Amino acid sequence: MQSLGVTGGAGLAYGALSTLGLAPATAQVPFRSPAMGDLIGKAGSGASVVILGGGPAGLCAAYELGKAGYDVTVLEARKRPGGRVWSVRNGTTETDLNGETQTCTFAEGHYFNLGATRIPQGHITLDYCRELGVEVQPFGNQNANTLVNYQSATPISGQSVQYRAAKADMYGYLSELLQKAASRGALDDVLTGDDKEALASFLRDFGDLSSDGRYLGSTRRGYESEPGAGLNFGDQRKPFAMSDTIRSGLGRNFSFEFGYDQAMMMMTPVGGMDRIYTAFQRAIGNDRIRFGAEVSALRNTPGGVRVEYTRDGAKQAVDADYCICTLPPNLVGRLATNLPADVLTALKAAVPVSSGKLGIEYSRRWWELEDRIYGGATNTDKDIAQIMFPYDHYHGERGVVVGYYNTGKRHQAFESLTHRQRLAKAVAEGSAIHGEKYGRDIASAFSGSWRRTRYSEGAWVGWSGSDAHGGVATPEYTKLLAPVERVYFAGDHLSNAIAWQHGAFTSARDVVTALHARVAA
Amino acid sequence: MQSLGVTGGAGLAYGALSTLGLAPATAQVPFRSPAMGDLIGKAGSGASVVILGGGPAGLCAAYELGKAGYDVTVLEARKRPGGRVWSVRNGTTETDLNGETQTCTFAEGHYFNLGATRIPQGHITLDYCRELGVEVQPFGNQNANTLVNYQSATPISGQSVQYRAAKADMYGYLSELLQKAASRGALDDVLTGDDKEALASFLRDFGDLSSDGRYLGSTRRGYESEPGAGLNFGDQRKPFAMSDTIRSGLGRNFSFEFGYDQAMMMMTPVGGMDRIYTAFQRAIGNDRIRFGAEVSALRNTPGGVRVEYTRDGAKQAVDADYCICTLPPNLVGRLATNLPADVLTALKAAVPVSSGKLGIEYSRRWWELEDRIYGGATNTDKDIAQIMFPYDHYHGERGVVVGYYNTGKRHQAFESLTHRQRLAKAVAEGSAIHGEKYGRDIASAFSGSWRRTRYSEGAWVGWSGSDAHGGVATPEYTKLLAPVERVYFAGDHLSNAIAWQHGAFTSARDVVTALHARVAA
Repeated sequence: MQSLGVTGGAGLAYGALSTLGLAPATAQVPFRSPAMGDLIGKAGSGASVVILGGGPAGLCAAYELGKAGYDVTVLEARKRPGGRVWSVRNGTTETDLNGETQTCTFAEGHYFNLGATRIPQGHITLDYCRELGVEVQPFGNQNANTLVNYQSATPISGQSVQYRAAKADMYGYLSELLQKAASRGALDDVLTGDDKEALASFLRDFGDLSSDGRYLGSTRRGYESEPGAGLNFGDQRKPFAMSDTIRSGLGRNFSFEFGYDQAMMMMTPVGGMDRIYTAFQRAIGNDRIRFGAEVSALRNTPGGVRVEYTRDGAKQAVDADYCICTLPPNLVGRLATNLPADVLTALKAAVPVSSGKLGIEYSRRWWELEDRIYGGATNTDKDIAQIMFPYDHYHGERGVVVGYYNTGKRHQAFESLTHRQRLAKAVAEGSAIHGEKYGRDIASAFSGSWRRTRYSEGAWVGWSGSDAHGGVATPEYTKLLAPVERVYFAGDHLSNAIAWQHGAFTSARDVVTALHARVAA
Repeated sequence: MQSLGVTGGAGLAYGALSTLGLAPATAQVPFRSPAMGDLIGKAGSGASVVILGGGPAGLCAAYELGKAGYDVTVLEARKRPGGRVWSVRNGTTETDLNGETQTCTFAEGHYFNLGATRIPQGHITLDYCRELGVEVQPFGNQNANTLVNYQSATPISGQSVQYRAAKADMYGYLSELLQKAASRGALDDVLTGDDKEALASFLRDFGDLSSDGRYLGSTRRGYESEPGAGLNFGDQRKPFAMSDTIRSGLGRNFSFEFGYDQAMMMMTPVGGMDRIYTAFQRAIGNDRIRFGAEVSALRNTPGGVRVEYTRDGAKQAVDADYCICTLPPNLVGRLATNLPADVLTALKAAVPVSSGKLGIEYSRRWWELEDRIYGGATNTDKDIAQIMFPYDHYHGERGVVVGYYNTGKRHQAFESLTHRQRLAKAVAEGSAIHGEKYGRDIASAFSGSWRRTRYSEGAWVGWSGSDAHGGVATPEYTKLLAPVERVYFAGDHLSNAIAWQHGAFTSARDVVTALHARVAA
């Protein structure tokens, strides 16, 4: 079994080879941080780097370069680190681009992540949590007790069905159908007798089929009343009919939990995803990060870079040897720059995606008390798309439910609403799924739309006109992977894990490696 | 959507009806604790109940009766509460029935649950955690990064395959085969055109099929090297061949995670399952629990019960109005009793199941560092059956892995071994799956076999000769649901959740309800 580790190894050596064209650019490179000793006695010792943006890419780059003694300066427009990693809690105040100001009044200790909220086991985000001492806990990304609720031309339309029931029926009928086809000989050109025997054995178990190969329901569906002691065998829920199950599309979201970056176990920092960035901030040092610094100009100069910014109403400038620009690509074009026209065109090819969340603080954990839900999400084809249940404060008195996390058109339905209207729409749709209790015991709420959020104006970008999370080797994307003289671009938008912190970190590491190799050369 | 709640409601009223034969005995009864006011002025006020066994059933019964002012006395042979709920930690000492003594030397804060370790969302065990203030956390019961490793007559035999890869391939080929059969018209007698269209749409997504309906691998399988930034699209792992995938039986354990009582999310108390029983102990009061009390006799007397026991070498006795016997059914026959012969015969029909666990403390969390596993279990057809990874101390320096949790023949292979031999066998089998690192960095270990554990002599019981967890309406089982004069039987063995705390609790509640109704009458 191959190790999945992506850390460790000799990054600098490879980086040097890579810039000489001796190593394939697409190979997996184990990253090694630049180290203090690498440049001793070299001309580049103590090179200065100005980093635009204090989100995941910017802070990761500053942190890694700092290890080797680079003179780094991070300029961040917001008053907090993390960028689109934003944990909203008591006291969080934001005025959005609609002009509306919200202030969060959640009870102490409660929060929700308006941006990134979960970490797959394979992502180097977890390595940074370990390295920076950020405590992690499981994130409920799958739950048999959460609900699906979809419209269809079947009697199931608009019904709230537990995932466990939807899965049992779908897998049951799927198994029954395949077993029937195989036993009829319909697949004899592709299945041997041994294959058929092994398949039948799998399907019996996978679909919970009867001895004659039929799906007649399953304890996996759940019970009207739970089995207990004595002769209380529970009151098993009846399955839906086969045709209704299939045509209702109950299984349309099953594959989510097999996804490479969504399959359990998933993790998240205790207390909020932004804990990673306050930890980065501590490790980098406050003297190296200027918050409230709105960058206005970025120029290559002879032998360096010059960045202008406004802070507390005053124009200021930083001159440095290099710049790493991690600003959203859609915002770079607004700066005064001397970047070439083809670079500016390439930046415009990154199209901001519409997405956002609404956090609803309830003073009663009805999802535990009544629906017996401990984390995970309910899915629907309504505009809210999903309802995400908290993965903390189990059995507490209150909790924050994410009333929607949606993208594209379904988020746009909320984007231009006032916060109060968003809450009303979310509660109406949520009540149609979880019942009247969804509208009761609401203590407070907070919402955000990334396209209407200053300094971001997008949740992430799509290179191909979609909201897909993969990088693409288009000329525009590829163009931005190379530095423009002394200006480097980094961010999740230049990775194959767009919208993931992992993408921002790997991009930052690539740039750090390339920059360090250049300085060392 | 129906609420799944099983608590609350009017237990006493129902209990009274039930004893009069006016309510069906098998109906789901919302439980209501006996309350202090129920018996005011009644003859039974202050009735005394002696409870044999301080495990889940015994402590639950004592707790619930205590609420109504019953004079309860719990006799527990062990020096700790919880019975088969046993969290092994630093200082735990046990001499087993093989005569071997082990003392646990795990680092402070580390433990494993040698008995019950997980709680499904639907079980009333969680309600007791809430009521008693026992903090809970998610239990990793499913993980795409853990491994399967099985013998077969295919090239996959003995290979360690990540669950995510096994699932992707199995679901991919399953989908391809069913799509092929359906598009050939082989199922036209059971599928309409609409059905087929909806099914095709589901299968494309579920199996990650190509546009022409074939499974050609999937990102869901994982990568040799993780996708990163720039043009690093990752190095996708190739799928196994269809026939090999099917015949290897890679999918034999997939249904585990759909099981009614195993599907995520699963929960567990922070710090050990025994926290529930130290909380019960506090709530009941130490003055009402006699630890180290080995019961030797149980007799109905005119108007009461008499229980004899040995404590600190001294013979003692308790006289009470009623007795609730929660001892393992296989041990009751050894007491001096005046129970009728048919009851003693019925108790013998409960056959103890062989099961146990081995906890291995590692001083390095290789499963996180190298295999990127954060909880969940590896499955195999070797004797160890499974390797369970810790759900706590993430990113810490050390952790306790459960090196086996197995039942029946596969556990019997360990039962008569010395602890040192068990560890050696477990490490040999585990190393064949997770590699040589499995044998390194072992700091200590502790093992237990329930059939060789004093006061239990079984992990749980099977009524039908199997290790199934369901109650059965056999004459023997049914016989024990009724009291013998003033002696009641309770325990998970008299429930439809055998081996689960839920079973013990529901059984205890049934007995408490029946006893209280009798006293109130």
